[in-house]
Amino acid sequence: MADAGDPAVSPWTVISVDDHVVEPRHLFEGRMPADLAAHAPYVRTTSRGHEIWVFDGAAHPQVGLNAVVGRSKDDSPMEPVRFDQMRPGCWDPDARVADMDEAGIWASLNFPSAIGGFCGSVFSACSEPEVGRACVRAWNDWFAEEWFEPHPDRFIPCGMVYLADADEAAAEIRRNAARGFRAVSLPEQPQRLGCPTLHSGWWDPVIEACVETGTVVCLHVGSSGMMDLPVDGPLVEIAATLFSSLSLIAAVDWLWSGYPSRYPELRLAMSEGGIGWVPMLCDRLDYIVDWSGHGRRAWPSTEIGPTDTLLRNFWFCSLDDPSIWPIRDRIGVDHIMVEVDYPHADSTWPETQSFLADRLAGLPVADQRKVLFENAASLFDHPLPAHTFPLTEHTPTDHTEV
Amino acid sequence: MADAGDPAVSPWTVISVDDHVVEPRHLFEGRMPADLAAHAPYVRTTSRGHEIWVFDGAAHPQVGLNAVVGRSKDDSPMEPVRFDQMRPGCWDPDARVADMDEAGIWASLNFPSAIGGFCGSVFSACSEPEVGRACVRAWNDWFAEEWFEPHPDRFIPCGMVYLADADEAAAEIRRNAARGFRAVSLPEQPQRLGCPTLHSGWWDPVIEACVETGTVVCLHVGSSGMMDLPVDGPLVEIAATLFSSLSLIAAVDWLWSGYPSRYPELRLAMSEGGIGWVPMLCDRLDYIVDWSGHGRRAWPSTEIGPTDTLLRNFWFCSLDDPSIWPIRDRIGVDHIMVEVDYPHADSTWPETQSFLADRLAGLPVADQRKVLFENAASLFDHPLPAHTFPLTEHTPTDHTEV
Repeated sequence: MADAGDPAVSPWTVISVDDHVVEPRHLFEGRMPADLAAHAPYVRTTSRGHEIWVFDGAAHPQVGLNAVVGRSKDDSPMEPVRFDQMRPGCWDPDARVADMDEAGIWASLNFPSAIGGFCGSVFSACSEPEVGRACVRAWNDWFAEEWFEPHPDRFIPCGMVYLADADEAAAEIRRNAARGFRAVSLPEQPQRLGCPTLHSGWWDPVIEACVETGTVVCLHVGSSGMMDLPVDGPLVEIAATLFSSLSLIAAVDWLWSGYPSRYPELRLAMSEGGIGWVPMLCDRLDYIVDWSGHGRRAWPSTEIGPTDTLLRNFWFCSLDDPSIWPIRDRIGVDHIMVEVDYPHADSTWPETQSFLADRLAGLPVADQRKVLFENAASLFDHPLPAHTFPLTEHTPTDHTEV
Repeated sequence: MADAGDPAVSPWTVISVDDHVVEPRHLFEGRMPADLAAHAPYVRTTSRGHEIWVFDGAAHPQVGLNAVVGRSKDDSPMEPVRFDQMRPGCWDPDARVADMDEAGIWASLNFPSAIGGFCGSVFSACSEPEVGRACVRAWNDWFAEEWFEPHPDRFIPCGMVYLADADEAAAEIRRNAARGFRAVSLPEQPQRLGCPTLHSGWWDPVIEACVETGTVVCLHVGSSGMMDLPVDGPLVEIAATLFSSLSLIAAVDWLWSGYPSRYPELRLAMSEGGIGWVPMLCDRLDYIVDWSGHGRRAWPSTEIGPTDTLLRNFWFCSLDDPSIWPIRDRIGVDHIMVEVDYPHADSTWPETQSFLADRLAGLPVADQRKVLFENAASLFDHPLPAHTFPLTEHTPTDHTEV
C-alpha cells in the first residue's frame, strides 16, 4: 500500500476521454467509392512549403490543428504547417501507443482534427452530399482499421456522422456500433453549424440510434464553433479562457431539448468542458424551478427534474479543476473523468502522471480510481488491464477484514 | 449574541447590489430641453388596454420588464402590461423604501428597466443623437431627484451614459459623480450593442472618468443582450438558466481588454452574474498561463497576472450559490456581495431575510457581514446604519479578551 498513488513507483491507470488524431494524408486512399475518389480531400504543398488540405474547392491550412505536443511551452502556439513538424503520435497509431506508454496512459478516446471538424462538420457541409457522406464513412473506416482494430484495448472508438441527413447519421451510428464503436461525436449546438436545432425533432432518429446501440454522445468543446468574440481582441486567449463556457451552454441546450429526460439511457459526455460549471448549473436549475418558477412550466418531464436529469445523463471531463474537487460530490464523483488532450497545447503529456498525482492528491483512493479510469471504463464499456492503480484501500494482499 | 444571525429577532443588515427601477410615465416631463421634449419617450395605451412606451418611432411593449414581484410564483411569468399590474415599489421610491423595510433591506442599487435598457442602450441607439443624449441626462436627473436625494442612505445611485459618444459619456460620469453617484451601468460586451469593442481604445475616456471619480463600473447580465439561442427552444428557460454564463464571458472580455491590469483602481461589479464561475475561471487562467502557455504572450501586463487581476479589480454578486460558499476563499470573501433582484421573478423579496439566513447559515459571522453589507458599503462608499447585524463575534457587550 505504501506505493499506491505514487506514480514514480507504479503508474496510475489513466483513461483519457479527450484526445485528437491528426488525419494522415493517405486517409482517403482506397476508402472512397471509385466514382467519388477524385473528390476526396487531398494534401497539397504550397509554394511556401506548407502542407494544406484541399476539399470541395476550399483550402484548409491547419493540417495539424494545434498539434504542438512535445514542444517547449514557449513555442507551443506556433501552428505546425507540415506533417513533419508534428510528433508522429499525432497521426500514427503505433507511435501514439508508444507515447501513451511513455506517459502511463492506458486508453484514449480520440476526436478528429481540422479536416474532419471535431464532429464531421467539414464533410457534412460539402456541396456534393454523396462526397460528404463518403468522406464520413472513409474517416470511420480509417479509424476502425488503422487505430481501433490493431489496438482494441488502447483506443475507445468514437465515430462521426454526416450531419445533413438524420437517417444516414443513424445508420452510420448503427454500422459503427456493430464493429465496436462506443461513442459518436455530435455538435455542441447543431444550429451553429446550420443544422436543425435540438428542439426541432430532426435529431430523433440520431438519438434513438445512440440509445438503441448504447453509443455515448460526445460533445466536444468547439465542435460547433466558438462563441462570438470581439474581432480586435486577443482571440486565441479569450477563446482558450472560455472553453468551458461553450460546454456549459451546450449542456443547457441539450438538457432543455428534452432528450435526456425522455431517454434515461441516453449518455452525454461533455468533452474538454471541465467540471467547474456543473455545481453552478445545478444551483441555478434548482433556483429557477424551486424559487422563481421560470423552469417549472417548460420542463418537459413530470418524472424527473432538470438537476437530476443533468446528473443522471451527463458525464463530465476534468483537465485542471483544482478549486472544484472539494465540491465534487455536488456533481457526483461517478460522472467525472479525466483527459490528456494530446496533441494540443493544453495537453498534460508527457507529464500526465505527475500532473494527475498533484491535482488528485487530496482525493481518497476510491475517488481517484473512479475519475482516473473506472468511470470511463464503465461508460464506454472499455477493458481494463489486469492490475489497476492506485491500489484500493483493501487489496487481496492486505488480508483485511472489512 | 444568542440572536446574532437570527433574522426573526434582529434582521440582518442587507445591501442589495442588483435591483431595478421601472421608469414611470412622467419620467421625462420637465427633464428634456424644450426643443426636444416632443421627441421624449411617452406612454400610450393600446386598443387592448396595454400601456406601452413609444420612442423614436418604435413601440416598447414591456413597460415593466418582468416586474412580477409580489405575485404568486405560478403567475410570475405573466408580463405586466399596465403600470397598475405592478407593485408601486417598482416605480415609486417611497413605496420601494417601504417594501425594502418590509424585507429588511437597508440599501439597494437599481438598474433601469426596458425603456432605459439596462445600460442606456435604447436611448443610445436613438436615430437623433441629441434626443438620445437628452434622454440619458433626463434618466439620470430623474433618478437623482426622485430616488437618491430624498433617500440618500437607502439607494446607491448608479447612472447611465450615452454609449455613442465616449467624451459625452465621460462627461456624464463626472456630472453624476459630482452629485453623489457611485456607479455607472456599462454594457457587458459593447460590440454586441454595435459599439466599438473594449480592445479598440474607444473606451479610454470612459474608463479614465470612472477611475478618476471612483465610479464603480456595473456590468449587468443581459445589458448587451442575450447569447444566441435556438429559435425554437424554450427561450426564456434557456436564457434564465444561462444568466451567469453571460457574466463569465463579459468578465473574460473585460479582463483581456487590459483595462483592469492597466488601472489598479478600476472597480468592476458583475451584476446578477452569480459567483459560481469565478473559481473555475481562476483555475483556467492559471492553467493557460502556467501550463499551456496560451495566456503568457498576449497578457497586457508584466506586473500582475490575469487571476490576480480578476480577484483585485472585479466584485461578484450572489443570488443563490449554495454549492459555491464552501470554496468562497478561492474568490475572496471581500469581493462577494448579495442581491435581491427586486422586482423580477428571481427576486427573494419579501423573503429575503429567511432566504439569506438559510443560504449563509454555514458561514462565520465575519463572512456573513462582509457579503451582506460590509463589502457593498466599502465598494460603493455607502453609509451604514448605527447598528448592523448579525453582530460580530466580539461585540462591546461581550467583554471578551481576544
